[in-house]
Amino acid sequence: MKKKYVYLFTEGNGSMRELLGGKGANLAEMTNLGMPVPQGFTITTEACTQYYNDGEIINDEIKSEIMHYIAEMEKITGKKFGDIDNPLLVSVRSGSRASMPGMMDTILNLGLNEQVVESFAKKTNNPRFAYDSYRRFIQMYSDVVMDVGKSYFEKLIDEMKEKKGVKHDTELDADDHKELARLFKEEYKNKTGKDFPSDPIEQLFGAIKAVFRSWNNPRAIYYRRMNDIPSSWGTAVNVQEMVFGNMGDSSGTGVAFSRNPATGEAKLYGEFLMNAQGEDVVAGVRTPHTLDYLKENNPAVYEQFSNIASTLEKHYKDMQDMEFTIEQGKLYMLQTRNGKRTAAAALKIACDFVKEGLITEKEAIMMLEPKQLDALLHPQFDAEAIKAAEPIGSGLPASPGAACGQVVFTADDAKEWSVNKGARVILVRLETSPEDIEGMYCAEGILTGRGGMTSHAAVVARGMGTCCISGCSELKINEEAKEFILGGRTIKEGDWISLDGSTGKIYGEAIKTVEASLSGDLNTIMKWADQFRTMNVRTNADTPKDAEQAIRFGAEGIGLCRTEHMFFEPTRIIAMREMIVSKTEEQRRAALNKLLPMQRSDFEGIYEAMQGYPVTIRLLDPPLHEFLPKDEKDIIELAKEMKIEVAELKGIIHSLHEFNPMMGHRGCRLVISYPEIAEMQATAIIEAAINIQKKHPEWNLVPEIMIPLVGDVRELKYVKNIIVKTADAIIEKSGINLKYMVGTMIEIPRACLIADEIAKEAEFFSFGTNDLTQMTFGFSRDDAGAFLDAYYAKNIYENDPFSRLDQNGVGKLVKMAVERGKEERPNIKLGICGEHGGDPSSIEFFQKVGLNYVSCSPFRVPIARLAAAQAAIKSNI
Amino acid sequence: MKKKYVYLFTEGNGSMRELLGGKGANLAEMTNLGMPVPQGFTITTEACTQYYNDGEIINDEIKSEIMHYIAEMEKITGKKFGDIDNPLLVSVRSGSRASMPGMMDTILNLGLNEQVVESFAKKTNNPRFAYDSYRRFIQMYSDVVMDVGKSYFEKLIDEMKEKKGVKHDTELDADDHKELARLFKEEYKNKTGKDFPSDPIEQLFGAIKAVFRSWNNPRAIYYRRMNDIPSSWGTAVNVQEMVFGNMGDSSGTGVAFSRNPATGEAKLYGEFLMNAQGEDVVAGVRTPHTLDYLKENNPAVYEQFSNIASTLEKHYKDMQDMEFTIEQGKLYMLQTRNGKRTAAAALKIACDFVKEGLITEKEAIMMLEPKQLDALLHPQFDAEAIKAAEPIGSGLPASPGAACGQVVFTADDAKEWSVNKGARVILVRLETSPEDIEGMYCAEGILTGRGGMTSHAAVVARGMGTCCISGCSELKINEEAKEFILGGRTIKEGDWISLDGSTGKIYGEAIKTVEASLSGDLNTIMKWADQFRTMNVRTNADTPKDAEQAIRFGAEGIGLCRTEHMFFEPTRIIAMREMIVSKTEEQRRAALNKLLPMQRSDFEGIYEAMQGYPVTIRLLDPPLHEFLPKDEKDIIELAKEMKIEVAELKGIIHSLHEFNPMMGHRGCRLVISYPEIAEMQATAIIEAAINIQKKHPEWNLVPEIMIPLVGDVRELKYVKNIIVKTADAIIEKSGINLKYMVGTMIEIPRACLIADEIAKEAEFFSFGTNDLTQMTFGFSRDDAGAFLDAYYAKNIYENDPFSRLDQNGVGKLVKMAVERGKEERPNIKLGICGEHGGDPSSIEFFQKVGLNYVSCSPFRVPIARLAAAQAAIKSNI
Repeated sequence: MKKKYVYLFTEGNGSMRELLGGKGANLAEMTNLGMPVPQGFTITTEACTQYYNDGEIINDEIKSEIMHYIAEMEKITGKKFGDIDNPLLVSVRSGSRASMPGMMDTILNLGLNEQVVESFAKKTNNPRFAYDSYRRFIQMYSDVVMDVGKSYFEKLIDEMKEKKGVKHDTELDADDHKELARLFKEEYKNKTGKDFPSDPIEQLFGAIKAVFRSWNNPRAIYYRRMNDIPSSWGTAVNVQEMVFGNMGDSSGTGVAFSRNPATGEAKLYGEFLMNAQGEDVVAGVRTPHTLDYLKENNPAVYEQFSNIASTLEKHYKDMQDMEFTIEQGKLYMLQTRNGKRTAAAALKIACDFVKEGLITEKEAIMMLEPKQLDALLHPQFDAEAIKAAEPIGSGLPASPGAACGQVVFTADDAKEWSVNKGARVILVRLETSPEDIEGMYCAEGILTGRGGMTSHAAVVARGMGTCCISGCSELKINEEAKEFILGGRTIKEGDWISLDGSTGKIYGEAIKTVEASLSGDLNTIMKWADQFRTMNVRTNADTPKDAEQAIRFGAEGIGLCRTEHMFFEPTRIIAMREMIVSKTEEQRRAALNKLLPMQRSDFEGIYEAMQGYPVTIRLLDPPLHEFLPKDEKDIIELAKEMKIEVAELKGIIHSLHEFNPMMGHRGCRLVISYPEIAEMQATAIIEAAINIQKKHPEWNLVPEIMIPLVGDVRELKYVKNIIVKTADAIIEKSGINLKYMVGTMIEIPRACLIADEIAKEAEFFSFGTNDLTQMTFGFSRDDAGAFLDAYYAKNIYENDPFSRLDQNGVGKLVKMAVERGKEERPNIKLGICGEHGGDPSSIEFFQKVGLNYVSCSPFRVPIARLAAAQAAIKSNI
Repeated sequence: MKKKYVYLFTEGNGSMRELLGGKGANLAEMTNLGMPVPQGFTITTEACTQYYNDGEIINDEIKSEIMHYIAEMEKITGKKFGDIDNPLLVSVRSGSRASMPGMMDTILNLGLNEQVVESFAKKTNNPRFAYDSYRRFIQMYSDVVMDVGKSYFEKLIDEMKEKKGVKHDTELDADDHKELARLFKEEYKNKTGKDFPSDPIEQLFGAIKAVFRSWNNPRAIYYRRMNDIPSSWGTAVNVQEMVFGNMGDSSGTGVAFSRNPATGEAKLYGEFLMNAQGEDVVAGVRTPHTLDYLKENNPAVYEQFSNIASTLEKHYKDMQDMEFTIEQGKLYMLQTRNGKRTAAAALKIACDFVKEGLITEKEAIMMLEPKQLDALLHPQFDAEAIKAAEPIGSGLPASPGAACGQVVFTADDAKEWSVNKGARVILVRLETSPEDIEGMYCAEGILTGRGGMTSHAAVVARGMGTCCISGCSELKINEEAKEFILGGRTIKEGDWISLDGSTGKIYGEAIKTVEASLSGDLNTIMKWADQFRTMNVRTNADTPKDAEQAIRFGAEGIGLCRTEHMFFEPTRIIAMREMIVSKTEEQRRAALNKLLPMQRSDFEGIYEAMQGYPVTIRLLDPPLHEFLPKDEKDIIELAKEMKIEVAELKGIIHSLHEFNPMMGHRGCRLVISYPEIAEMQATAIIEAAINIQKKHPEWNLVPEIMIPLVGDVRELKYVKNIIVKTADAIIEKSGINLKYMVGTMIEIPRACLIADEIAKEAEFFSFGTNDLTQMTFGFSRDDAGAFLDAYYAKNIYENDPFSRLDQNGVGKLVKMAVERGKEERPNIKLGICGEHGGDPSSIEFFQKVGLNYVSCSPFRVPIARLAAAQAAIKSNI
């Protein structure tokens, strides 16, 4: 069957998102619902894929299909491309399956040329509007299709305003715009060497290709990577008859949400600009009115819109984000989609929808984005500290949460300070643009001088869960001097400020922040999630403090307690170093004996904090040289402390040097060289458990002792024997009937290949997907930075395999290990304690392969609980 | 069915090697053939395994079975353990499935005690013999069972000889030996705190346990690792009635080979000592007679032995290594086994057997040990250089080949000098013992002052293929002063000497050596091998010189040509460094343009050398920092050369530093960052091929371009596109119809998991099993030394996975990749270019999984040809 590459809005529907993109499918759906939608057609995502397969060419088949639909559209509208009497003008907009706000490019007013604009001016009897539209078109087309930056044109506008002595664009008249259009075309020719195209068909194909190309611009690639969107999807192109919000004072354009996207309040919420085109609202160049303005000035249209919003929300069972235009008093819907919202709003909306009977609890769980909860789990201001603080100004509360950091003024600086200096930064900009996105990811918070709640900065920050205050109009930024003035204070680069993204208040000082806890809607959702969830959620915690935080977040055990972190404390590292420089087993045992009571009391603290929940403790993992000093001064000091010669100590350090420490003498390999390390650690674990069990007879402690870096069953057997011998002797002496388990990390590719053999000895597996990813890909996380950027830029990798489990490669090994492990030991306990344990898409995979639990940082426990619930629900569909 | 743990010699046969060990099975077989074998029984290898399973205890079941067979033996021989009138005396000897010469322990004369020895002295009318036997027994038992070193007893003998003013043991009389026995028992009590056991049953069980234990002594573990013998096999124990070669001048003991083990000459060959026990011959303490002495002095026994030897050779279809004893004129066979032999002898024997009609060509192929060919492929003396050389002495030509190196006097020094200093060493010892084995492996050649052709040094050296001269009686070694005197010359540690292991000549200077070539028997065998072989054998070669050597050895192509080695040459590294420090693509291209003609001419040379055989060239692999200098002086020099600031250069070097270079920015990752590198290399390869193809129209060159370190198909696709674009443009311009292939290394675990996807783009796979092993095991070869020794010592690993492919882990990945690769592209070309390509056991695996070729160092090509033939023959059995 011949492929169909173009659909009229009347031919599609809301379920065709894959083919038509979100925008196209929803335009079709709204058309079907009888809503006022300007006519048009959608070129499918498959056409985009075909375009790339053909070597970035629109082939003849697709071209002729588009031509056919142009004719159709001319028939329906009764207008004609390039017709002087009744010209067809269209917008060309991208629309992919997943919403990618601000990432793709749009062209409005396409179809205008010298002749058309003149007649259009006459026909509308509004030359100012016609020439304004024309110069906008030239500007957008130049930027999007020919890559001639907007700034060239903005400079011309500024020069014009100066010449005319006016302040706002709106003060320019028809002749000014006409003159601007002329100057723009001149600029176009200067920059491209070609005349600006006057044939609307040529303009249209230029625009379509530009949309296709924009799918692979660096911002789009970056956004996809950050949001797990595959590059293979492609984008659709929507060609739609223009309606004009800039046709005078009975016209306007707006963006609205069916509920408040910041709080979730069940009230229509939006922004509106009179006599403007859509981009003016989104770009945040002018600060818009609220919808109340519309209500007052045009209650009929407001009423109509309000009904549409309510219908759409019920229809889609989700909060809607809509674009509309009023052309000379008549309402047109240009877009609807499920709206981005803050985490708090998302929770409130989900809970309210259930209360309203619109959806079930299960559906409420499924409509949430687990990663977004992050925002609620981030620090808030310390209640005491904030009492004394006086804000120096305020803006719009665009994305909630508290942030505190050092001021930087460019996205590059944000990246540089945060990545290279490890600084916490607040990015302060007049307004943000898609180019700033990487810097925004690095910032603790974002503060802008312009733009509303739907400005680029606000939308992106909410998506990221980053605190943001937008539209702080008092803010005077001097980017060159790297300073800003607010509330009479001059704040320079590097100075500390604090933001409250929930209130919009800005503080000119560092304010202490505190951790969040679960309550209200979040707590409700978590309880619902726990009903559906089949995997347990544990935490990775090395200290009682972390363990307590995790318990507050609902952790059901510790999946990974790293014992080495305890040895880095200054009071302990001395004994650790003594152990390392020991020349005989006796010396080593003496040093280990000093570590034993410290280690035992660590474990006691952790058992106490975990209140009887299971705790998996991993034996010492890193290579020993990590504990030794590196620079001359420290070495001399240590030698003195250890009472050995500096030269001797240097010799030891030298002998422990490794070419590839990641693949060196670590994990169970240490125990095979020095069995007494495992003896000490097993002693500490078992004695601690006995002590706590005696104190809390109501708990049933079953210590889980985990052996790292196992690649062969004989390694495991050797270390296990030591543990069992040690543990059994202590337990027998204690008179308590303590059970314990011995298991292994699965983090070496070979372990997955022989997991059946390993399961003979291991009572549990815990997948260490960080190391497993490193070894399966053959690159070290510490070194990959040098080349992964090129991989992303060239579309070789779409996302970071250390954040999102590589199901195609690493996942195969995990699956193999699970199957082989269960084959040998059907009741084997299976968990994962790599960083993927807190990543929703990875959690879905772990559910599919049948793990018993995921373990993640305390901070991510609620995210994992929600993601696990979604995974369980999906697996039953 | 109840397991049978003990077999009388009459109950077993030659096919029961697994159960009875080699020695036991052959004693049974000889008994069945009616040969004169002293009676006895064999305790099975399963009893040994059971002993370890029971926690190093002989359980009651086995114990009672042994007691039963002792009674049987007493019945057969009419002698009784501990009986004063007619005592049963036995030898206890180990015997595993594979021959492990000198590795396991033996006890003779067991059953003697104070009472028995006295009556034995009377009964044999030879008190000297009786007490000599007794003190030998005490000495061996103390050493083997109680770990009281021989040296304590040797010191007592030396004191006795001094006291008596005699030089040789044989000059000591009965009373001296009686006194020695008393002193020995005193020493035993001193060292062990216990009385020497007088109960023969207690002695016997002590000895059996000692044999079992010796299976896991460090020497045995080391030998097994070096010879690929699994530790699970266990050893059998042979208990055999004693016969005495030390019963006076009509007695004696000898070791003989059915053919000459050094040359393969078809003539009985052996050594014989009058009035001695077997250990005297093997230990090399006294220099023995040849068999001619026996022929002259006892022609009847010689004749009988000669017939037996001939019968056994025909029976086993292999050259036999036999131990025999003559007790008062009567011949007894104590052992027969397939004899160890030099590589040259092995070839000659195989060819002669075929000529004699004893075996087929196929059987000839199967009876050879491919690794052994190594000895023939090692350097010989340069014909010119040797002409002028005058030997300073000579010894027995114990293991052939030429060696040249610096003198060391201990095995530890040999290891230290060779491993840590990279020196070529000759190990000079009075005699060697099993403790020396590691040092012997490190030496180019071995020279001993004592011992014959069957001494420890000689046997082990032949097994290793290492040049050895033994029994150089003029050699005066002063181990403390680290020097020796020979032919009037004093040679100190570190001085250069040369050995000719084929003639026994010793030279006091360094003599140039040359590579070997294929001729004579080796050539014959290679031709036979090629008939049976189904896999091709290629070579890893980076230079025309290596390529030529490989062609001489029969290589059928290059499987791996590493392009980076070419860049390390002093004239080239400058351009390479220029490329690395380039700041722009233009600078990089300029530097690459300088490298292009050099690289092209390298490839031309290699194509010429390979005479039209296929050549696989791998793109640049190592991380760039490997090409930059490391120390201050070199950095300053380079900065000057490059005309950049030292600080800037240091900055570049610093920025290229990697934590884990093995898993860093290398392989195809370099090309993804700097595509112009692949452009240059593809240009050089294709241009070189075109030039050579034009010169040799009779050849059909098809360049194989190989991309390293691929883990994802998109990496491969990206690099392949660059190559194809570059190559096609050059080919089109050339007017020649050159075909070429683009393929990939498979060396990242992930590549194996997604080999089907990769095969969509790759026309061939070449398994890089070195890196694949590193990443699958998760340890770096450079760092593993720090812990692998402990792994071997604790029986966790039995052999080095870098020498012998880990079939259980890495092999699974290889198999998976082969299957998935073929699924996608049935005619995909499959090869292996890791070091395992020259390892016979790995080659057998590669045959099984269906590779098209193996590639190894030039040096190992004949070994691989033979191993591939054996693998093909086995796969058809």
